[in-house]
Amino acid sequence: MSRFSVTYRIFAPDLADARARAEGIALEQTVEVPRDVVPDSVVEAGILGQLEEIGREGDGRFRAVISYSPESAGAEFTQFLNVIFGNSSIQRGLRVIAIAPGPEMLARHPGARFGIAGLRRLSGRAQGGLIAPVIKPQGLDVAALAEIAYRCALSGADIVKEDHGITDQPMAPFRARVEAICAALARAASETGRRALYFPSVAGHSWEIRDNLHFARDAGADGFLIMPGLLGFGLMRAIASDPDLALPVMSHPSFLGPYVLSSDTGFEHGVMFGTLQRLAGADISVFPNTGGRFGFTRDECAAIATACRAGDGPGTPILPSPGGGMSVERAGEMAAMYGPDVVYLLGGSLLRLGARIGEGIAAMRDAVDRADAG
Amino acid sequence: MSRFSVTYRIFAPDLADARARAEGIALEQTVEVPRDVVPDSVVEAGILGQLEEIGREGDGRFRAVISYSPESAGAEFTQFLNVIFGNSSIQRGLRVIAIAPGPEMLARHPGARFGIAGLRRLSGRAQGGLIAPVIKPQGLDVAALAEIAYRCALSGADIVKEDHGITDQPMAPFRARVEAICAALARAASETGRRALYFPSVAGHSWEIRDNLHFARDAGADGFLIMPGLLGFGLMRAIASDPDLALPVMSHPSFLGPYVLSSDTGFEHGVMFGTLQRLAGADISVFPNTGGRFGFTRDECAAIATACRAGDGPGTPILPSPGGGMSVERAGEMAAMYGPDVVYLLGGSLLRLGARIGEGIAAMRDAVDRADAG
Repeated sequence: MSRFSVTYRIFAPDLADARARAEGIALEQTVEVPRDVVPDSVVEAGILGQLEEIGREGDGRFRAVISYSPESAGAEFTQFLNVIFGNSSIQRGLRVIAIAPGPEMLARHPGARFGIAGLRRLSGRAQGGLIAPVIKPQGLDVAALAEIAYRCALSGADIVKEDHGITDQPMAPFRARVEAICAALARAASETGRRALYFPSVAGHSWEIRDNLHFARDAGADGFLIMPGLLGFGLMRAIASDPDLALPVMSHPSFLGPYVLSSDTGFEHGVMFGTLQRLAGADISVFPNTGGRFGFTRDECAAIATACRAGDGPGTPILPSPGGGMSVERAGEMAAMYGPDVVYLLGGSLLRLGARIGEGIAAMRDAVDRADAG
Repeated sequence: MSRFSVTYRIFAPDLADARARAEGIALEQTVEVPRDVVPDSVVEAGILGQLEEIGREGDGRFRAVISYSPESAGAEFTQFLNVIFGNSSIQRGLRVIAIAPGPEMLARHPGARFGIAGLRRLSGRAQGGLIAPVIKPQGLDVAALAEIAYRCALSGADIVKEDHGITDQPMAPFRARVEAICAALARAASETGRRALYFPSVAGHSWEIRDNLHFARDAGADGFLIMPGLLGFGLMRAIASDPDLALPVMSHPSFLGPYVLSSDTGFEHGVMFGTLQRLAGADISVFPNTGGRFGFTRDECAAIATACRAGDGPGTPILPSPGGGMSVERAGEMAAMYGPDVVYLLGGSLLRLGARIGEGIAAMRDAVDRADAG
């Protein structure tokens, strides 16, 4: 059975130390006992992680490739991630810089159902950047949120996305809100002849989530916004692959900051917001845009976009979606940086326009089209 | 409605900068739009985060207390955590150092169902440290794992805990394993007259988890091991409060490392492995012990134990459970450090004994009792 491999950056004083660390990780992530305690049957079954390669990457930094058996990872996405970086996440000086799933794990977790091509088909936006206004703020009632959604759809929004901070609060309960926004978007579609896709935010206590998703689908929702950092990558994987839902998934980075912010732990930006999202089935990966109120650099954001769209997988290419500090004024700069296969999240800068929010959407569409054209 | 508050450590060059950061967080974590865009109705409803206090903590470090409305956090634990540290987790130089839930959020998330007192009652260990061998390694079959569980129970284990890396792999599928281990522990109990508690590892794809938990309960499991870092704190909260399960929960730190490892992001150790676990309903909080193969300091571990057991909440005190590098040789040192209200996880050092694993449990019991007696 083809093994999968994880490339780690190990911070260590010398190669011998790095090698010892790597050998420790191979045990930690699988049997979690010292090597001399591992029963022969377990060794023979190939369950132990295996150090495949190790080399110096720079001063005090080494790169180690460790392969694992699909038997270790089982069928659940959660356990796959547990083998990749469960207990080893608690070791200082260790960062995941690449994941190569191999054919067997890819068969178990084949990636996005829709991806770029699917989203273009569903949205009817055959080319150019997609525009996704964010319905907010938290605290507005159902009617006010539906009115914002209506105005956005009327003016050419491709995806109407709910704020990740709007779930099932008493000001705008999930089911009432979903019904009202679906009705508002249907009304807009009847006027324009073009339907904006609606991605409500996944809500509910754990045991209620699946029922809520079916409710939203039946009401007319077109996809879901989910925060894997809080709800779990396994849940995103379950939603993305659920045959009864069969709707696209937009992933939101809430609570994931500490996995990328420190260079000596966690994941490289492209792995967290690209590779891992693809493996877990996301069709769109939201991440904090450079130049906004988060500190991601231009290189980090470019690496994320590259990882989302790489033609060699895992799975089908997906849409990167930079958010935070996006505005009409920055459309040209962003289009030059991200190219056409991108979803622009628009939040606060749009809401400032109040009842004229539609003008903001139209201006963004125009700016993006001009930038994409040349 | 009583507000809850979060204390953040902000890394900033001066107080003015720290204040601006704090005011930004109060917006980011609630309405997520600039202040001038917030509708009056939302302001009047108290939805905005409010900066209650800010002061210098040290060189380049400030302490800010921000209060939030329970309306922002709604009823789901996930959303509570989203308000505490969702998007702000992506800002560099920001760390959660305290959470004060206040009466309203505490009514929604009242903490552990069992806690220290409940676990002592269930286990029959009225005083002294509890001993919890870890059933592993991954790769053994059902019969081999059940045999280890049997030997541990026979020799006085209080809790037989499965390794967090054992879920539903083909080598030992969840349901077959749970049934076999329950039978093995019943056999041991019939011989000793005392029942070891059995905590299987939560397994299954998202939609199957609840059925699996009911299966395990019906088979005779006494509690569950769950990794909130991978499965979500909301799921742990759901399991801990499920009236149909009504079993204790042991929380495992897998995948949570990056939240504590860097001092300028994430959570203080005591908040992550104490306060947050208590709010999410854990009865036992596993964390990496000092002196083992993880780098936690003695002070960090002591802070975790204190946060787990503090008499003033949130909720009832729970059991800290240091793991990693635990052994009979260290029992005295550990008992002096942690006192009697603790669960000692024993893994690799026990398995090295092979068929004589029971002798290890008995030796640990003896060492802990002698140390607890002073």
